[in-house]
Amino acid sequence: MTIRLRVGCGIRYRTCGATAAVLLVRPRSDSRQLVVDERSDSQPAVSLREFLDLYGNRCQRLVLPAGELALRYEASMEVSDDPDAIDARVPQRPVERLPDEALLYTLPSRYCLSDELMGTAWDLFGDAPGGWGRVQAVCDWVFGHLGFRYGASDPLTTAVDVYRDGEGVCRDFAHLGITFCRALNIPARYVFGYIPDIDVPPSKDPMDFCAWMEVYLGERWWTFDPRNNDTMPRRGRVVIGRGRDALDVAMVTTYGRVELTGMEVVAEPAATDPRRLQRAADDRL
Amino acid sequence: MTIRLRVGCGIRYRTCGATAAVLLVRPRSDSRQLVVDERSDSQPAVSLREFLDLYGNRCQRLVLPAGELALRYEASMEVSDDPDAIDARVPQRPVERLPDEALLYTLPSRYCLSDELMGTAWDLFGDAPGGWGRVQAVCDWVFGHLGFRYGASDPLTTAVDVYRDGEGVCRDFAHLGITFCRALNIPARYVFGYIPDIDVPPSKDPMDFCAWMEVYLGERWWTFDPRNNDTMPRRGRVVIGRGRDALDVAMVTTYGRVELTGMEVVAEPAATDPRRLQRAADDRL
Amino acid sequence: MTIRLRVGCGIRYRTCGATAAVLLVRPRSDSRQLVVDERSDSQPAVSLREFLDLYGNRCQRLVLPAGELALRYEASMEVSDDPDAIDARVPQRPVERLPDEALLYTLPSRYCLSDELMGTAWDLFGDAPGGWGRVQAVCDWVFGHLGFRYGASDPLTTAVDVYRDGEGVCRDFAHLGITFCRALNIPARYVFGYIPDIDVPPSKDPMDFCAWMEVYLGERWWTFDPRNNDTMPRRGRVVIGRGRDALDVAMVTTYGRVELTGMEVVAEPAATDPRRLQRAADDRL
Amino acid sequence: MTIRLRVGCGIRYRTCGATAAVLLVRPRSDSRQLVVDERSDSQPAVSLREFLDLYGNRCQRLVLPAGELALRYEASMEVSDDPDAIDARVPQRPVERLPDEALLYTLPSRYCLSDELMGTAWDLFGDAPGGWGRVQAVCDWVFGHLGFRYGASDPLTTAVDVYRDGEGVCRDFAHLGITFCRALNIPARYVFGYIPDIDVPPSKDPMDFCAWMEVYLGERWWTFDPRNNDTMPRRGRVVIGRGRDALDVAMVTTYGRVELTGMEVVAEPAATDPRRLQRAADDRL
Repeated sequence: MTIRLRVGCGIRYRTCGATAAVLLVRPRSDSRQLVVDERSDSQPAVSLREFLDLYGNRCQRLVLPAGELALRYEASMEVSDDPDAIDARVPQRPVERLPDEALLYTLPSRYCLSDELMGTAWDLFGDAPGGWGRVQAVCDWVFGHLGFRYGASDPLTTAVDVYRDGEGVCRDFAHLGITFCRALNIPARYVFGYIPDIDVPPSKDPMDFCAWMEVYLGERWWTFDPRNNDTMPRRGRVVIGRGRDALDVAMVTTYGRVELTGMEVVAEPAATDPRRLQRAADDRL
Repeated sequence: MTIRLRVGCGIRYRTCGATAAVLLVRPRSDSRQLVVDERSDSQPAVSLREFLDLYGNRCQRLVLPAGELALRYEASMEVSDDPDAIDARVPQRPVERLPDEALLYTLPSRYCLSDELMGTAWDLFGDAPGGWGRVQAVCDWVFGHLGFRYGASDPLTTAVDVYRDGEGVCRDFAHLGITFCRALNIPARYVFGYIPDIDVPPSKDPMDFCAWMEVYLGERWWTFDPRNNDTMPRRGRVVIGRGRDALDVAMVTTYGRVELTGMEVVAEPAATDPRRLQRAADDRL
Repeated sequence: MTIRLRVGCGIRYRTCGATAAVLLVRPRSDSRQLVVDERSDSQPAVSLREFLDLYGNRCQRLVLPAGELALRYEASMEVSDDPDAIDARVPQRPVERLPDEALLYTLPSRYCLSDELMGTAWDLFGDAPGGWGRVQAVCDWVFGHLGFRYGASDPLTTAVDVYRDGEGVCRDFAHLGITFCRALNIPARYVFGYIPDIDVPPSKDPMDFCAWMEVYLGERWWTFDPRNNDTMPRRGRVVIGRGRDALDVAMVTTYGRVELTGMEVVAEPAATDPRRLQRAADDRL
Repeated sequence: MTIRLRVGCGIRYRTCGATAAVLLVRPRSDSRQLVVDERSDSQPAVSLREFLDLYGNRCQRLVLPAGELALRYEASMEVSDDPDAIDARVPQRPVERLPDEALLYTLPSRYCLSDELMGTAWDLFGDAPGGWGRVQAVCDWVFGHLGFRYGASDPLTTAVDVYRDGEGVCRDFAHLGITFCRALNIPARYVFGYIPDIDVPPSKDPMDFCAWMEVYLGERWWTFDPRNNDTMPRRGRVVIGRGRDALDVAMVTTYGRVELTGMEVVAEPAATDPRRLQRAADDRL
């Protein structure tokens, strides 16, 4: 019914001067994914103060000191062991029957310019059947038309750019999928998280943070992943943050110039007791 | 998959002087129960200003004018047509694995003195199997030991009083059930709402507002109804408010002396188009 | 200490088919501006269901019927009778000392592309003294460099467009001011509301909804109004909505094509008892 | 304008078996009191996972292991250096003009049985002038009629008990003051926090956590402290938690039997750089 996972990351920064920052690497903790145990650490030691943002994401504030900083986060999780659900019969709700809290996710946002791509979306997907089928058509199109290339996008790249250039990383796949859905009056939100490699062929990408989307159909939010459209359904997704787009749930937001000098991510089944793993991790630190 | 309901009420008050009040008769609107259409009215006309309380309940503020006031509320609803779920295998979560938002509902509250009845609860139910079985044992006990009697309780009556006196109304059945659950470290919250008579023998009580409870087991909240313990499962419950106990979700809270001179409640399947019903209701007003 | 205002609007739409919409014309109600009495109405009668959005704004959902619809809203308010405060000594907080809830308003948003105008902002205002002086320099620049012209912008116009084209309406003045502030690491949010003409020369514009900005300095949010930069301070502002930019607090958001065929806005001191005004308004409707 | 404080505590527990708990010792962080730096630690090391409760308090969840546990928390704060404000002219708002979020604090709660003491409150204070004067009369009465005695109350003691027995600790002084205010339709909430001894004669009590109340008058919440009624106004209060009564903001809530074997509290001006203090504290740990 549930599986145990070990997720976390190590990140290294270099800055010329003390720089305020917000870090978002800790999973949400709810009935579907429970944070059993977690630990944040840094070299040199800095104070990490958590807060919940407007979306309920568990952010941490810190000041990156001048010079180098190594951050490390690790958590033991208990996660519902259900793969991403598929139900092709789930209908689309007309806007007037959407729950209030879904309405926000029908609007354009910084990177998801659904207003600009409105016509394009209806041209491409207007004939697809409503509901699940239409969202799947969006994912198929995005997966089929975008090439995956590291470095294809930068922090100013919007879904319009991605559509025009035809390439991107998982962030961009998600942005374009979300943009089309919103243009079609289907609520879609951006998700940032960890995905372990369970029951899948050797991962195409080195293990990394991932971005996907959740779409409101029928009576709830459903997971769609335009980047991994061919390997769905996945098991053991761990949501770090949800928001309107990548801007709301950036791994790190810095208020000044910062150089990322190293990053490693872990997301894997915890073979043994999480407390022992934790201690092992401590020893390594 | 969904049914259409018509719910609402008419309430009449008499006061000696203008009196501030908060009214809570409008259903919550979410993906499980959607308010399609609604209307509030009064004779004489008073201003009703809505707000969301801390629990997300849709309250309305008003000033009852000196003299008489007739309030009327009516809504067309689309409600998930699933009866109250029963799953005797659902386990109890240890407290450390409860989601954060459930913790509030493990604490005592004004009417649910789980601290005072802690020993009693463990004496009565400590041997019952954990999880669903223990909650059902609580409901069976409350249903079996309390007599239903209008007027058995007043606004000062706590679950301790109900336990001692052995009688009450649905509010008191719910309070005692909630109190026992909390004493057993099972989150339980109070629910106030409408229940239509669908597929049940002629109701024992005249149609009225009802109170029941929701209990956190496994991965979500489940509906339990100590008062209707013998006729479960019911279909078409419409939640007006959730809170710690009846104090948080009173139909009306008044700041001064007020006399309730009449009340009628409706909760029934909407045979026809809700807009027509609505208009019919308007004509009657 | 407080003044009484009467605010409201009448709006007329024409649509080809039933269209879901969200309306935002009702003021927020808090300790600074209290909604004493309010009324919404429409011809033909449609159901207006309120909800609070993520920012606490009091939105209303409705379905515009095919054909014509006339909406009318009116409220009696009690508002703190303090003009917009000016305190040139208020310092800027470094980001690490901002309260958590202000951080959202340091990020770019759909219309306020502070990432794209980052360099421009520092070129223009980097030499201005920090804090109040820097924000005032932003307002002076925006007021001095933008021309006011109805029709200068459309729903796709961003602050980058406004900066380049040098003209706009109050929405655009606010967007550009907000964008510069955020680029300078000063939290800034968009405000939509009513402003009565109290103690000012005959208004340059016909009475209308207005947009301005709030900026976080020292220990709180302060009102700045780039559009009315020369007539500050104003008295009696009534906030309808706050958000990241105009997208979050649009007067109306429609899910389909809708034609706005008429609009009138009122915001004026209430000379007499609000209840009488209310009734007068009813008679006119 | 602000002062720097160092606040924190050390707490020691003994348990027979692993016991879930919620800890509330970390100050709120907002524009009035900023947490600059903070650190939680324990011997043996346990995982502390923070969450925000319904009131926005920064709680921490943990499992107390069988045996002994020493918890330590320390924070560097920047706090507005204004003493508790006094303004005897501040009027009372009629209930219908209270802001929505204050209404919760007019209701009875577990320990503050304002419904039971309604008559008493009006008998005692009905003749006092409304507003500030009436609240001050409540504080004077509570301070004058209650004796301070450690051990006078236990976790079941309500304001009714305190009123009858005439003694208590600061928790009980606050409960009775709150209860009278609510009975008089004045919103009052319970506050738990640290108070440094600044500019006061040697404290009557050993340094400890404190409880006081906030009351809604005029346009905001004001601090009143029935226990320290004679030494008001105080400077440098640091709020840990706000809620309906002590139940909502307990220093620790445990789900099982736990013995508190030691506690020390610190709240004092930080003479020097907080980072150095922090490091000194680390060395001591």
